[in-house]
Amino acid sequence: MKQFIVREIPKTNLEISNFEMQEVDIPKPSSDEILVKNILLSIDAANRTWMQGRTYRDQVFAGDVMPSYSIAEVVESNHPDFKVGQIVTSESYWEEFSLVKAKDVNKCPQNVPLSYLLSIFGIAGLTAYHGLFDVGRMEASDTVVISAAAGSVGVYAGQLAKAMGCKVIGIAGNDEKCKEVVDNLGFDGCINYKTGNLLKYLKEHCPEGISLYFDNVGGHILEAVLVRMQNRGRIVCCGAISQYESSSPIGPRNVPGFIITKRLKMEGFIVMDFQDKHLEAINHMKALFDNGKIKVIEDIAEGLESAPEALVNLLNGKNFGKSMIRVFPDP
Amino acid sequence: MKQFIVREIPKTNLEISNFEMQEVDIPKPSSDEILVKNILLSIDAANRTWMQGRTYRDQVFAGDVMPSYSIAEVVESNHPDFKVGQIVTSESYWEEFSLVKAKDVNKCPQNVPLSYLLSIFGIAGLTAYHGLFDVGRMEASDTVVISAAAGSVGVYAGQLAKAMGCKVIGIAGNDEKCKEVVDNLGFDGCINYKTGNLLKYLKEHCPEGISLYFDNVGGHILEAVLVRMQNRGRIVCCGAISQYESSSPIGPRNVPGFIITKRLKMEGFIVMDFQDKHLEAINHMKALFDNGKIKVIEDIAEGLESAPEALVNLLNGKNFGKSMIRVFPDP
Repeated sequence: MKQFIVREIPKTNLEISNFEMQEVDIPKPSSDEILVKNILLSIDAANRTWMQGRTYRDQVFAGDVMPSYSIAEVVESNHPDFKVGQIVTSESYWEEFSLVKAKDVNKCPQNVPLSYLLSIFGIAGLTAYHGLFDVGRMEASDTVVISAAAGSVGVYAGQLAKAMGCKVIGIAGNDEKCKEVVDNLGFDGCINYKTGNLLKYLKEHCPEGISLYFDNVGGHILEAVLVRMQNRGRIVCCGAISQYESSSPIGPRNVPGFIITKRLKMEGFIVMDFQDKHLEAINHMKALFDNGKIKVIEDIAEGLESAPEALVNLLNGKNFGKSMIRVFPDP
Repeated sequence: MKQFIVREIPKTNLEISNFEMQEVDIPKPSSDEILVKNILLSIDAANRTWMQGRTYRDQVFAGDVMPSYSIAEVVESNHPDFKVGQIVTSESYWEEFSLVKAKDVNKCPQNVPLSYLLSIFGIAGLTAYHGLFDVGRMEASDTVVISAAAGSVGVYAGQLAKAMGCKVIGIAGNDEKCKEVVDNLGFDGCINYKTGNLLKYLKEHCPEGISLYFDNVGGHILEAVLVRMQNRGRIVCCGAISQYESSSPIGPRNVPGFIITKRLKMEGFIVMDFQDKHLEAINHMKALFDNGKIKVIEDIAEGLESAPEALVNLLNGKNFGKSMIRVFPDP
């Protein structure tokens, strides 16, 4: 089978050449192990942070097979809880088949297209939901700003906030993405941060200030948003993609200044922290989806070969909606 | 009477020469106004931030009489709620007598030395209490780190945390202050951040990590502490004295990185936000004080003339405990 190893950990920008494809035998599960077939691989900005050091998971080093969250099918199992044919979420790798332990897989239903288990009802939608509701305590009266608005998580965060009745302003890196989240996803506005003065645009779009900021990017954009936060506003720290490849990372200079004078609350989270609330989140989004209030936005590249390019593209803001790789068709 | 005006707002470090003393007539209260005699003026790092821009109060400009929170005695009153002789907290100025409105004064008891109404039972102690309990949700199991540990607020924060049963490590700017908070106030340790590697010292003092950080300084110290925070730690943002006089303010580069991966919560506050809980706080501290569990640590300079030097000293870390100016003796 085919798999990708990390050839080299880049100091700055990740490149396709940092990965190398190799062919290996499909492994055999030993006692308690499970062999899964990776149908869809999730491409996430977090993958890049894993290369930079130990986070909530072990660091990825040069020579490692590139790890990836995936939707997979059990093809051989020595564990009583998992039967052949079962669809699971899995802590897999960029490869066609992965050997995993029972603790690293979770059963999931197969009553929707499997890509939905990564997008609206999976890591992207759940991250948006838990960030807004469980961390951000979103209310209908909020003015919500969402950075990386057209990204994997942003498209769901914005639609969830609109469905709640909030005013929603996106921040994205080109005019096409801005137009799309406004015209197709119902955002009240979207700022292309690469053109003109972000502070000025934020003031124009949010003259009343921002009460809830869903931050996927960190850096200069976070710094600018802090200036426009309302007193007692909340900042949900979901990602910092602007910093993942920087050789000279910057911190927002008005931290902690504005945190104090505006009495802000800034809180980080990881979607896995909210496993006990996933079902509630999925039910919430299912109802909105069934009523046409949330659209599924996915950016699926075909074939394991496309994984390196998809991750590089994501880090350069080229995806629209949840990024993933289709390795095999849905069974 | 004597008063100080701000002669010039400095771009970097405040100097004594930025203030100018002048003599003016004692003003007469018009209807609804109250004339108070300023007995003690509170010297706070926040005074410096008022010169930098609008915060939770109006900006201070060159030419203004320098504002200051004070303990004062009513000497003339045209307001029915305030009688001559009443002791009040007051939004006053660096001057012997101030004209104030009823909304800017609050009655207070005179059953303790009046300096206690600025230190243990006043702005310093209340800031420590509300920061630790109401914002930081301190528990006995916490490892608490406190920057500016020998400062106005730090000395009370550290003693409150020790009385709670926490492990308490201070950070201060010289060995004398470190020795004093350990030997006299019972801190478990104190790091002089000006000698050696703060990261290394934090690791030595808190091998288990830090669960609660009471931040009075911001900047590089906050950046270092973030590295040693435990997962789900809380950061109480009380002050950022390292940045108030900087011509090139810095933000901690690991914001929001560690906020996300460690799921931290960072929250700012202003002591006035908790007025409805002041009595609870005072009762708590009174009980500890009566039982010898908290010492009153004050740094009182004599005479209105010493106000500029006291503020400059405070900004340079030269005070030990709550800084204030005695303008008149207790009545």
